[in-house]
Amino acid sequence: MINKDQVEADYKQIQDEICAALEQLDGKAKFEEELWEREGGGGGRTRVIQDGNIFEKGGVNFSAVHGQLPETVKKALKIEQDDFFAAGISIVIHPSHPMVPIIHMNIRYFEMPSSFIPGQEPVRWFGGGIDLTPHYIIDEDARYFHSHLKSVCDQYNAEFYHRFKLWADDYFFIKHRNETRGIGGIFYDRLTATEDLTWETIIEFSKSLGRSFIPIYSELVKRNRDKKYTDEQQLWQYQRRSRYAEFNLVYDAGTKFGLETNGRIESILMSLPPTAKWLYNYQPKPGSEEEKTLSLLKKGINWV
Amino acid sequence: MINKDQVEADYKQIQDEICAALEQLDGKAKFEEELWEREGGGGGRTRVIQDGNIFEKGGVNFSAVHGQLPETVKKALKIEQDDFFAAGISIVIHPSHPMVPIIHMNIRYFEMPSSFIPGQEPVRWFGGGIDLTPHYIIDEDARYFHSHLKSVCDQYNAEFYHRFKLWADDYFFIKHRNETRGIGGIFYDRLTATEDLTWETIIEFSKSLGRSFIPIYSELVKRNRDKKYTDEQQLWQYQRRSRYAEFNLVYDAGTKFGLETNGRIESILMSLPPTAKWLYNYQPKPGSEEEKTLSLLKKGINWV
Repeated sequence: MINKDQVEADYKQIQDEICAALEQLDGKAKFEEELWEREGGGGGRTRVIQDGNIFEKGGVNFSAVHGQLPETVKKALKIEQDDFFAAGISIVIHPSHPMVPIIHMNIRYFEMPSSFIPGQEPVRWFGGGIDLTPHYIIDEDARYFHSHLKSVCDQYNAEFYHRFKLWADDYFFIKHRNETRGIGGIFYDRLTATEDLTWETIIEFSKSLGRSFIPIYSELVKRNRDKKYTDEQQLWQYQRRSRYAEFNLVYDAGTKFGLETNGRIESILMSLPPTAKWLYNYQPKPGSEEEKTLSLLKKGINWV
Repeated sequence: MINKDQVEADYKQIQDEICAALEQLDGKAKFEEELWEREGGGGGRTRVIQDGNIFEKGGVNFSAVHGQLPETVKKALKIEQDDFFAAGISIVIHPSHPMVPIIHMNIRYFEMPSSFIPGQEPVRWFGGGIDLTPHYIIDEDARYFHSHLKSVCDQYNAEFYHRFKLWADDYFFIKHRNETRGIGGIFYDRLTATEDLTWETIIEFSKSLGRSFIPIYSELVKRNRDKKYTDEQQLWQYQRRSRYAEFNLVYDAGTKFGLETNGRIESILMSLPPTAKWLYNYQPKPGSEEEKTLSLLKKGINWV
């Protein structure tokens, strides 16, 4: 069975582990912490790292909130109960180096306590994912990233990687640009126990995914942090970041949920890039690395 | 009566006048033009000026599109007919100088030809507005701006300024930040003839508003373009621009309409700033000009 206090405690522990490892990786910047309380119930620990050797701006946020859902959210989630509990970790890292990718990770648990009626199926689920947004797509790194995610998934269920990879392709899609946000990864939502899948497995998978963040991202940082780069490559990075901002402000469900439940605004929007540029009608040069990257921002690429 | 071809021709003429005057004001940069056609019908003239003496990035777009409305837009507009015609000019200017304000102007006409049934009220209306987003609010300039708009409105209807000023306060509001986008201006939508208001007056008002753009903005540019500024002030400008991007991507109806009707994406998003910064939890110093500006980003300030 699921003990929501245990989920909350595990997530907090994972947040601590990730922050400690990222500080070590950066070697300079330290996380600033803001503890906040939500007016309707619950609160969180927002931790932001800025102006480091590697990390220009990154957030590793934990929150556990509860209370009454606004009508708009009930409608969006297609549920009728009013009270909810939601706990999660949400990470976005914007590195200063254009060859180091942006990364996002989220693990979360949601339940509606008033739905826990004997003989009925309670409303509760897990969700989460990790996806990567390289400013420059490097095939080898993309393969490494997806292979590592697949090995995490395969420990728990033979279908997870395939299902959740397709889900990420569909979710992290900037419709108005007809391009994916990055090279995807995995994404899942409303995962519940079935005949073939226990709550135990789902919980362990959620924690494993959280704990895979550091080995995956450390490797990608180490591979790329010492490469030389030009001003032109930095300009391209800032343009890719503006696409990231577009996705998060126009499409991201977590951002919408936060804005509509009156979450703490600086915690919700910590995902937005430190510097972004919108240049009019910019076209990469034929045959360039920038053009190659654009050509790979598509659904359905099999990286494994 | 309204002749939509005449409206289209007048708007094109106004676009030409504005572009010529802005080039003269800048003294360096010239507009680049892209003519585009919309798959479903119509097209436009996107004109963008970049890297000028004064204008870092600005767009003066004309479009006249027609075709079938997607279901999502019909629902949002609460109308049942399918075919539409929409013509308009839309302007956003991001100056490089932090003391020169961002400005936005829009005039537009919308009709549904299939609603033109004898004996019934056809569906057609005008909309538009001008609003100002100073990075630093200067009281005198704010008063000048609103007084000029009021004098334009007063030529056509004694109630326009009051009604449309309140409308702008409500419309240009960043709900999740609890702050207005700037100092407002005027905004109106679905303006139709009544017993006290002829179509003639509405059309003339729309054109006058378009033609007030240059005198108003030229004056504000001239007042501020030669002031000295610091790197800190530029950093503040970039942060204010990120709020502008948030408004346009999360709330702006014109942007949503463009994204949902598959408009030309670079024309729709030309409004986004050339460089924007999201710093985590930035707080202006007590007593600073930045703090004063934030304190004035509120609805209901009477600037006249």
